[in-house]
Amino acid sequence: MKSLRYVGKRIPGIDAEKKVTGRSIYINDFKLPGMLYGKILYSQYPHAKIIGIDTSKAEKLKGVKAVLTGRNIPSIRFGFLQDNSPLKREKVLCRRDEVAAVAAVEPEVADEAISLIEVDYEPLAAVFNPESALAQGAPLLYEERGTNLISLPTGLDCGNVEEGRRNSRWIAEDRFEVTWVTHCCLGTSGCVAAFDGKGNLLMYTNTQIPSYTQKYFRDALEILGLRDKKVRIIQTAIGGAFGSKLETHPHEYIAFLLAYKSGRPVKILFSREEEFMATSPRQPASIYIAQGCDNEGRLTFRDVRMLMDAGAHGAGALWAPTVMMMTTSSLYRVSNVRFRADFVYTNNTYCQAMRGYGNPQVTFAVESQMDILAEKAGIDPVEFRLINANEPGEMTPQNLKITTCGLKQCIDKVSEALDWEKVRKEGHGIGMASLIHVGGGARIYRSDGCGTIIKMDDYGRVDVFTGATDMGQGSETVLAQMVAEELGVSFEDVNIVNGDTNLSPWDVGAHASRTTFIAGNSALLAAKKLKSQVFEIASEFLQEDIGFLELGQRRVFSKRDPEKKIDLAKLLRSTHFSTQGRVLMAEAFYDPPNQLYDKENKGNISATYAFGSHGVEVEVDKETGQVKILKYVAAHDVGSAINPLLLEGQICGGVVMGAGYALTERLISEKGEIKNPNFLDYKILTPKDSFPIETIFVETEDPEGPFNAKGVGEPGVVPSAPAIANAIYNAVGVRIKDLPITPEKVLAALKKKRGEGR
Amino acid sequence: MKSLRYVGKRIPGIDAEKKVTGRSIYINDFKLPGMLYGKILYSQYPHAKIIGIDTSKAEKLKGVKAVLTGRNIPSIRFGFLQDNSPLKREKVLCRRDEVAAVAAVEPEVADEAISLIEVDYEPLAAVFNPESALAQGAPLLYEERGTNLISLPTGLDCGNVEEGRRNSRWIAEDRFEVTWVTHCCLGTSGCVAAFDGKGNLLMYTNTQIPSYTQKYFRDALEILGLRDKKVRIIQTAIGGAFGSKLETHPHEYIAFLLAYKSGRPVKILFSREEEFMATSPRQPASIYIAQGCDNEGRLTFRDVRMLMDAGAHGAGALWAPTVMMMTTSSLYRVSNVRFRADFVYTNNTYCQAMRGYGNPQVTFAVESQMDILAEKAGIDPVEFRLINANEPGEMTPQNLKITTCGLKQCIDKVSEALDWEKVRKEGHGIGMASLIHVGGGARIYRSDGCGTIIKMDDYGRVDVFTGATDMGQGSETVLAQMVAEELGVSFEDVNIVNGDTNLSPWDVGAHASRTTFIAGNSALLAAKKLKSQVFEIASEFLQEDIGFLELGQRRVFSKRDPEKKIDLAKLLRSTHFSTQGRVLMAEAFYDPPNQLYDKENKGNISATYAFGSHGVEVEVDKETGQVKILKYVAAHDVGSAINPLLLEGQICGGVVMGAGYALTERLISEKGEIKNPNFLDYKILTPKDSFPIETIFVETEDPEGPFNAKGVGEPGVVPSAPAIANAIYNAVGVRIKDLPITPEKVLAALKKKRGEGR
Repeated sequence: MKSLRYVGKRIPGIDAEKKVTGRSIYINDFKLPGMLYGKILYSQYPHAKIIGIDTSKAEKLKGVKAVLTGRNIPSIRFGFLQDNSPLKREKVLCRRDEVAAVAAVEPEVADEAISLIEVDYEPLAAVFNPESALAQGAPLLYEERGTNLISLPTGLDCGNVEEGRRNSRWIAEDRFEVTWVTHCCLGTSGCVAAFDGKGNLLMYTNTQIPSYTQKYFRDALEILGLRDKKVRIIQTAIGGAFGSKLETHPHEYIAFLLAYKSGRPVKILFSREEEFMATSPRQPASIYIAQGCDNEGRLTFRDVRMLMDAGAHGAGALWAPTVMMMTTSSLYRVSNVRFRADFVYTNNTYCQAMRGYGNPQVTFAVESQMDILAEKAGIDPVEFRLINANEPGEMTPQNLKITTCGLKQCIDKVSEALDWEKVRKEGHGIGMASLIHVGGGARIYRSDGCGTIIKMDDYGRVDVFTGATDMGQGSETVLAQMVAEELGVSFEDVNIVNGDTNLSPWDVGAHASRTTFIAGNSALLAAKKLKSQVFEIASEFLQEDIGFLELGQRRVFSKRDPEKKIDLAKLLRSTHFSTQGRVLMAEAFYDPPNQLYDKENKGNISATYAFGSHGVEVEVDKETGQVKILKYVAAHDVGSAINPLLLEGQICGGVVMGAGYALTERLISEKGEIKNPNFLDYKILTPKDSFPIETIFVETEDPEGPFNAKGVGEPGVVPSAPAIANAIYNAVGVRIKDLPITPEKVLAALKKKRGEGR
Repeated sequence: MKSLRYVGKRIPGIDAEKKVTGRSIYINDFKLPGMLYGKILYSQYPHAKIIGIDTSKAEKLKGVKAVLTGRNIPSIRFGFLQDNSPLKREKVLCRRDEVAAVAAVEPEVADEAISLIEVDYEPLAAVFNPESALAQGAPLLYEERGTNLISLPTGLDCGNVEEGRRNSRWIAEDRFEVTWVTHCCLGTSGCVAAFDGKGNLLMYTNTQIPSYTQKYFRDALEILGLRDKKVRIIQTAIGGAFGSKLETHPHEYIAFLLAYKSGRPVKILFSREEEFMATSPRQPASIYIAQGCDNEGRLTFRDVRMLMDAGAHGAGALWAPTVMMMTTSSLYRVSNVRFRADFVYTNNTYCQAMRGYGNPQVTFAVESQMDILAEKAGIDPVEFRLINANEPGEMTPQNLKITTCGLKQCIDKVSEALDWEKVRKEGHGIGMASLIHVGGGARIYRSDGCGTIIKMDDYGRVDVFTGATDMGQGSETVLAQMVAEELGVSFEDVNIVNGDTNLSPWDVGAHASRTTFIAGNSALLAAKKLKSQVFEIASEFLQEDIGFLELGQRRVFSKRDPEKKIDLAKLLRSTHFSTQGRVLMAEAFYDPPNQLYDKENKGNISATYAFGSHGVEVEVDKETGQVKILKYVAAHDVGSAINPLLLEGQICGGVVMGAGYALTERLISEKGEIKNPNFLDYKILTPKDSFPIETIFVETEDPEGPFNAKGVGEPGVVPSAPAIANAIYNAVGVRIKDLPITPEKVLAALKKKRGEGR
């Protein structure tokens, strides 16, 4: 790559100063004149009929401006299966189901009003795991459906699994379990909804999907009878999202309805406890997996069946199999693949997207079992992975087109960094796991695009209006770097405008590690258009062919004649400040060359794929079962590193999140109730739990990526759990197949291994 | 004109609901976290040396965070002659000169701190009128200049005035006087300046010139040593401007310096008293005028000499001769013209732009004298005006190209509406006056342009980013009408984004009645580009030639085949929601075909010109001198009326402002001190002083105008004073040549006429 000024440089986040000096405006900071505070009453039971609700005392409380129940709101449906509603009318199906809501002049008054609402329930029998929910005679959540099973077309068949099985020399067959973990956003969920006198809606919310939120609330307005009204979504600063804000949520509809009812702006801001219990965690799963290999260690088949607890409503997690099947079919070369996933309604909490979106779950199974199978076949796990690693240019059985692929280099680098052969021989606990993930968008909607508008002022300063959402991942910084690079201006000259549907062009949302790739390509397209305008006017000004012009360090110059050069700002002003002058502006929309899955769930869903490999060395205390990470190496095929500083942050953040998933995190649900809804009892890793992480970037120069980059927002979290599980096995010989791998489980397994029954 | 859906319709202002429900955010409403309040200490003397300033007591006051004087700030210069500075260092030149400023945690604390600042002055002799300021030995404001006379190249010579005079049958020669009047904005001046940690500046201010304010503060930052920083100007809602916010003002620089010094946001908001005494009023003038006509009543020459009090600093009013000479040379056909204007420094307040920008002053002289001359020539004033009225297609001696011109129709319509001949014969007091004004921008900077960015969402909703400033004149509404019309969407579908330099494309500012014309053309250009994109995709979708396509009522259809039609929203979604789809966006910059004046002050400064004629019937109480307006008719050549409702508002507002100028308004200055800085003592017309106004729109269909419109923001105020003066003369036979025409002056003139000495 030619020498670049900003791309590839360790530039601190553009919003870092604002954040550390407390000047970012979060939903918490937000107050509109006349604003009310909304609070929600949740169900007292995991499953019950609502016989009646008496809100009279709440309504009489001074300062209360609106009280809503499922019986005095219009019928708004949302969610993946359209089976959720802002407030429940007839039945509650889980403890987090919303039963009533109030808006009052102060939060305390709203809290008091909530406590004055009397709900008359008729408790019903409930089910708390998929197996019992599928049993004959189990209580049904949706009686009209006749079953708790959710039938979705999430199967995949490639080649012939039975034949693959027959042709195997070695076969492994296991069951893995993963449980609920949650995003732990430090900024809790919240929004402010406000109507103007014409029925137009303004909503401030910390969503990841402003364009889709606008659409959904436009639909909701129509249900209120407000047709063709304007919906403006403004994102406040997002204190973490990780997928938790990829849908519209009950609290947003409730704020919207309270604002409509009261005629005043209404703010709902979750408490930490609400954030734990009333937002949707990562999808738990029970995973059956079998895979085999031939005598040379080449994978012969892979067969995955998942049974998943959908909880009480069909939310965003029901799409996660689209990613799970990708890893099943395409992480390593395997031609015979079967994937099945069943979701079952229970009276538990329901689930949604969380960083990796199904991939950490399935990768835990696939990569744990890769080690199991390698051991059976008597092949070193690194060797085994290299034998099967994907290669550039191949097409996977699910029809994913692998263009660039640095998996082998990642495996090699990790192996080298851990001094694999030596350390493993010495009996230390080291393990490895790899990943595949979408790296060039993911076409799950019909559009996977993002728009950009760009304008340049008289000094060469650039305003870039992008649809992209920066929820902390650093996309604003990366976009500014790319635009500054392309236009030859200073990084400081670039200002990013986003997060407001009135201002930002359309974007599908911040998901699937797509922002650098998609929004980056969009910004680059717009910048290139602007650049050609600059060259057009410079060509006339300098009397030089456009083909010989170059932009850099705020100057336009001829590549062949050093005399021909002009200050960019001077050129712009000479163009602007003349009769019938002009000011430079341009726009672009980029939608990547990827495909929706076809009816068989095959197709090239992403324009490129990210690969990576994690290696870890652990120490296991055989007396306590405590696992200590001594060294962690994360090698990623990133296409190219646009900003190594932020990229390291992305990867390290993912690794720590993944290590928490592996070792400590668990949302404890008892009879549908979250028992640890706080940071004391929910064990997220903190700085004192930190461990040394080495990040390695493999640059495969993706031809479709902006400055050859791939998306790497999610990959960091994906292979941590199996890498750690594999290391633990290597250390003490016990294979833990359910997460998190707590000291208790390790200890129990050690005892069992030593022949001591529990 | 073809039948239109929104253009030409009486649509209420797009911001009206927000304003009447109190949801517009004015600078008064504005508060940033950690914000301080700035207050200014003004001079105690009209002219004095500053010997010393003791700020120690103020600095010690609890809650005071910054105290500035001219001696601890960098040297920032501003104003038309660069002779003003935020705080004065050595000398004060007028009572409003800023001497010190403080920023404190509460406004009251800042007030107290101001009262604790001790300034040691050495008073100097002062001058309060141009004549004495020009006298030998007069005190000099700027000693280094050696004179108080300001020499500006504001002369104009067309033809041969002496020859014109010789060829005259009738000649009138008079002297007129106009005094200070002020804008009386109901929202006072104010701003909030805030720095981020990198030295970038954010300023909220109710300016009319966001793009230029950005430039000026970029320059100011450089003086602080902050090079290449970002300056973002955000306009708050403007509670009236009328030219008062066409410059950067001392209080803006002071807030900026206080924010820089304190490291915290600083707000300065003027009290009503400050608004009266520390903002700049309309330019007063002493006008000598002579004009003549031949036997047929044709004008032979016009000779104007003005002596004007510049006050203590050379501010925006020094440009007003550019407009004054336009009316002198080009209101009615007259080939021999001379115009001279001298400005003189005095220790009075200094002046700036105010609606009409010099035109009300000069038109008072020209049109009062038109009646005087008509009487001398024995020709009815209406007839006299018709003889000399401008015609379409003519070139005036100053090289103004009159394209469309409805002056004769305006005169006819007014005459008809007043039943001129009959009423005049009956001895009622009726009078008339006409006007010319720029109606297609005014190239006073090298660029007279405005940019627009436009984007359309999946439902055909349109966001229009314009450089245009809406300060109450209704430009947002008019732009939305034009865009809706052009794109065949609903008026409600259009959203206007403006008033933020990060978002809005460049615009020269809201002055010279240019916004509908310039921003309108710019918006139309962008809309046409977007429309051609719509047709491009519709052509493919409908299999129809682009030439046969039309847009209307949110549909695209074929003009020849009624079967070929599609919902706009559907078309947009089908284009967007496909692989490598697109979303529609476009941009345009419009800079009109007008010219800067040449060195002789000739040139076609505007792309078209507005004309109009006002007629009025008055009753004069001979006992009290009180003038009562019985009927007022205002006929204007508006090109075309884009929104008759708002246009009536514009014209009526202008007429009332003009009638106040004629009859009641006067800023009383005694020894440089404003003696009536409040609405009790400064007599603006109020609703109880209102009178019936009939507005008549003459539509001349300007070919360069957007939907054939001309600019008409200022004209309503221009001819009121002479029309009223002429009516008073017609009523009671006294000719008052200095404004305002108070009852005292009328009474004195009546007494004089009756031969009673005063």
